[in-house]
Amino acid sequence: MNELTHFNTQGRAKMVDVSDKAETVRIARARTSVIVNQNIYSQIRDGSNKKGDVFAVAQVAGIMAAKNTAQIIPMCHPLALSGVDIEFEWDVDEKRGHYEVILSTTVKTKGPTGVEMEALTAASAAALTIYDMCKAAGKEMVIGPTMLLHKSGGKSGDYSRA
Amino acid sequence: MNELTHFNTQGRAKMVDVSDKAETVRIARARTSVIVNQNIYSQIRDGSNKKGDVFAVAQVAGIMAAKNTAQIIPMCHPLALSGVDIEFEWDVDEKRGHYEVILSTTVKTKGPTGVEMEALTAASAAALTIYDMCKAAGKEMVIGPTMLLHKSGGKSGDYSRA
Amino acid sequence: MNELTHFNTQGRAKMVDVSDKAETVRIARARTSVIVNQNIYSQIRDGSNKKGDVFAVAQVAGIMAAKNTAQIIPMCHPLALSGVDIEFEWDVDEKRGHYEVILSTTVKTKGPTGVEMEALTAASAAALTIYDMCKAAGKEMVIGPTMLLHKSGGKSGDYSRA
Amino acid sequence: MNELTHFNTQGRAKMVDVSDKAETVRIARARTSVIVNQNIYSQIRDGSNKKGDVFAVAQVAGIMAAKNTAQIIPMCHPLALSGVDIEFEWDVDEKRGHYEVILSTTVKTKGPTGVEMEALTAASAAALTIYDMCKAAGKEMVIGPTMLLHKSGGKSGDYSRA
Amino acid sequence: MNELTHFNTQGRAKMVDVSDKAETVRIARARTSVIVNQNIYSQIRDGSNKKGDVFAVAQVAGIMAAKNTAQIIPMCHPLALSGVDIEFEWDVDEKRGHYEVILSTTVKTKGPTGVEMEALTAASAAALTIYDMCKAAGKEMVIGPTMLLHKSGGKSGDYSRA
Amino acid sequence: MNELTHFNTQGRAKMVDVSDKAETVRIARARTSVIVNQNIYSQIRDGSNKKGDVFAVAQVAGIMAAKNTAQIIPMCHPLALSGVDIEFEWDVDEKRGHYEVILSTTVKTKGPTGVEMEALTAASAAALTIYDMCKAAGKEMVIGPTMLLHKSGGKSGDYSRA
Repeated sequence: MNELTHFNTQGRAKMVDVSDKAETVRIARARTSVIVNQNIYSQIRDGSNKKGDVFAVAQVAGIMAAKNTAQIIPMCHPLALSGVDIEFEWDVDEKRGHYEVILSTTVKTKGPTGVEMEALTAASAAALTIYDMCKAAGKEMVIGPTMLLHKSGGKSGDYSRA
Repeated sequence: MNELTHFNTQGRAKMVDVSDKAETVRIARARTSVIVNQNIYSQIRDGSNKKGDVFAVAQVAGIMAAKNTAQIIPMCHPLALSGVDIEFEWDVDEKRGHYEVILSTTVKTKGPTGVEMEALTAASAAALTIYDMCKAAGKEMVIGPTMLLHKSGGKSGDYSRA
Repeated sequence: MNELTHFNTQGRAKMVDVSDKAETVRIARARTSVIVNQNIYSQIRDGSNKKGDVFAVAQVAGIMAAKNTAQIIPMCHPLALSGVDIEFEWDVDEKRGHYEVILSTTVKTKGPTGVEMEALTAASAAALTIYDMCKAAGKEMVIGPTMLLHKSGGKSGDYSRA
Repeated sequence: MNELTHFNTQGRAKMVDVSDKAETVRIARARTSVIVNQNIYSQIRDGSNKKGDVFAVAQVAGIMAAKNTAQIIPMCHPLALSGVDIEFEWDVDEKRGHYEVILSTTVKTKGPTGVEMEALTAASAAALTIYDMCKAAGKEMVIGPTMLLHKSGGKSGDYSRA
Repeated sequence: MNELTHFNTQGRAKMVDVSDKAETVRIARARTSVIVNQNIYSQIRDGSNKKGDVFAVAQVAGIMAAKNTAQIIPMCHPLALSGVDIEFEWDVDEKRGHYEVILSTTVKTKGPTGVEMEALTAASAAALTIYDMCKAAGKEMVIGPTMLLHKSGGKSGDYSRA
Repeated sequence: MNELTHFNTQGRAKMVDVSDKAETVRIARARTSVIVNQNIYSQIRDGSNKKGDVFAVAQVAGIMAAKNTAQIIPMCHPLALSGVDIEFEWDVDEKRGHYEVILSTTVKTKGPTGVEMEALTAASAAALTIYDMCKAAGKEMVIGPTMLLHKSGGKSGDYSRA
């Protein structure tokens, strides 16, 4: 006799169905940061990093990662993004020797699911690219905290970080 | 005190927002070519290339590259293509020893952005595949010129190469 | 004089145009199976496989493969899937020494083409992952038969395996 | 006080370390099959399938999937393959109305791990491609059984299916 | 007359040549963390998250991202990884309402370049996956700080975070 | 009785075996070009293109495509590249209204096969990216001719374009 047993259905991973969700315009903004040393700060500002223009490469990395989010995050729904933008700002305090670049990403689409993961993934990939291009001058860089700043669109309503 | 400086906003790469663009049927046609030597010409025509049927593989490469365009071209918007076709023609003049294969690609979609890049990318990947499969018989092959022949659909109107 | 010859148009591969097809809700279900030995069966049930929780990894592999179908199957149209689910069942007959895990996949989308290939690809990738994680304990595992169980949506109507 | 708890280390998925394994020549052969109806059989043999030359496309799909195996199978080690080949054979019995194409794949590399998964993945992707290109003429096709025929190289020794 | 001008060679991005570097065993360990709310903490511990077993999916995501690092980070050299492992630990203080999961990744290879980026990318992708699977229960989660803990192998010597 | 017929072995595509080839240092250089109009020329030189710094993005695209070559070109062997560099030069003749950017790529590896395809693919992807970022200001741009300039390493010896 055959013993037919359903595998533990609780805890089973799935990409949940979103075919009933309305297609609306969705926007998400995220941020992360990279704390670097003075040497790396100078390299980036002077454009003297031997691997190239650090922010230019990080931007491309972030934008491509945003488009690739559903391949990196297993349960994330694929979405055709309509726009991606990434900004860099320096937060520098020479006295305390603090050199930090802050990355802000904005992702937009018209679709059935939000783009929070795309904004967070873009920020992470851009920060990792900064790390990669500068690590010869100091491996103690710290990435993050990484967080969602804002999202709008969709049934669950808007969210803005307090 | 913190010094907050916006990174050079001019020249910053971004994937521009297209969420306001209408979804219309879009078609683009592109062409490229590969100039080969007589030996390669014979191999392709006879099916005697040791790596296989050159045009059959090149077609698959071109179609897959068309679908993959937004992964290859950083600022290109992802699109769900509805159709891709690639044609091969020989332009041969035995007297002057001229052997050239001309590739024409046609890509179609219903979406907010055009498919010029998909048509050009398909043509390039198919031509590169021809080069790869035939390079054992002559590395002096020349690819291109590669250009857009025609596009229709979208607000910017139709374009046909003069 | 130039000799212009169209390449054998019959037999030319293309991704056929679907821009006229209506966007409807599409569902497909597929199945496959993996016959394993008693040792592998015990490893999976006990969670003692040294590479990890076999079904948990296989589920993720299947879901990611479903999203990646148009990159694996050359003439398959890209689709933004709205849901993917994979179930595992044991069909065991200790007396005849028969240990078989049956995989069922369900894929859903709203789009112009069906999701049969996505359901079949998810099943195949999940089964291959089971093979990979268990092959140290027996390479004689047999995958399949793999087949479509059901599809609905689209002009060609519903299909259910007899 | 902080409560530090290790997550259930048993059952944790990992890509096991192979840095101690010797780099040897590795070969694997796998097989699968697709049972089709008479109509599909005729289409493939005549080259009258409207999507193109079925076996030519399936070969390319299988070879590309072999190279992509470590992206499809999560715990599979990446390997630079040195060769991939795929063969098709018809097993036809007109009297019983049996039309079956048998796919055999051979994969070779010089590396620290075997290429069983690459051979099996190539076979699966090629078979799925046959299904995709022919499904308009009958969705009842059956893929598999899929299995390893032979492997050689590596510490665990050779394996040949009985 | 033609004016031939070299484009600004300073600041030009490139993937720097490593063909002279020795192939040695390389190990890197990185960490990140995700601060969650009590509800999410309970969901993960109870296995009641509706998208599935959070850590199981995050592990697979991290391992696949490690293998995919050179596709995500533009100037990163491709490497055939020999091993990847990811651990999860809870750092919980119910009194202050602090629920934090700490992720540690270990990556190993034998190759000409280090695997710091692979360890950091694995950690980031696993943390992003936790965010994705839990965001329905609270979008205020914070990822990171993310940092390198240790690396060994290669000419530049060992590094351990102070 | 079964009729077993080998599929047309001639013309069958395969990735030819290279496991006997020696691992040597391999270098390849390729070139392509893009002819643009005066407006596009000014935009690139002034950094006034609204999608960003054209050459910076094109460089990243080219480098990533080089690493991705074996995914784009079906019969191409995967290789772990050790270095990739891309240079841009303007060839401008204001009198005849000629504005052309010349792209030169250099790819290096230590491996069993050459890197001609990687150099040509990098050049093509970088040129396509220039087209994409500038096409709003003129779709009549012409890419190529694209050709191999030089290769060294491997049994077949060096090649330099006459």
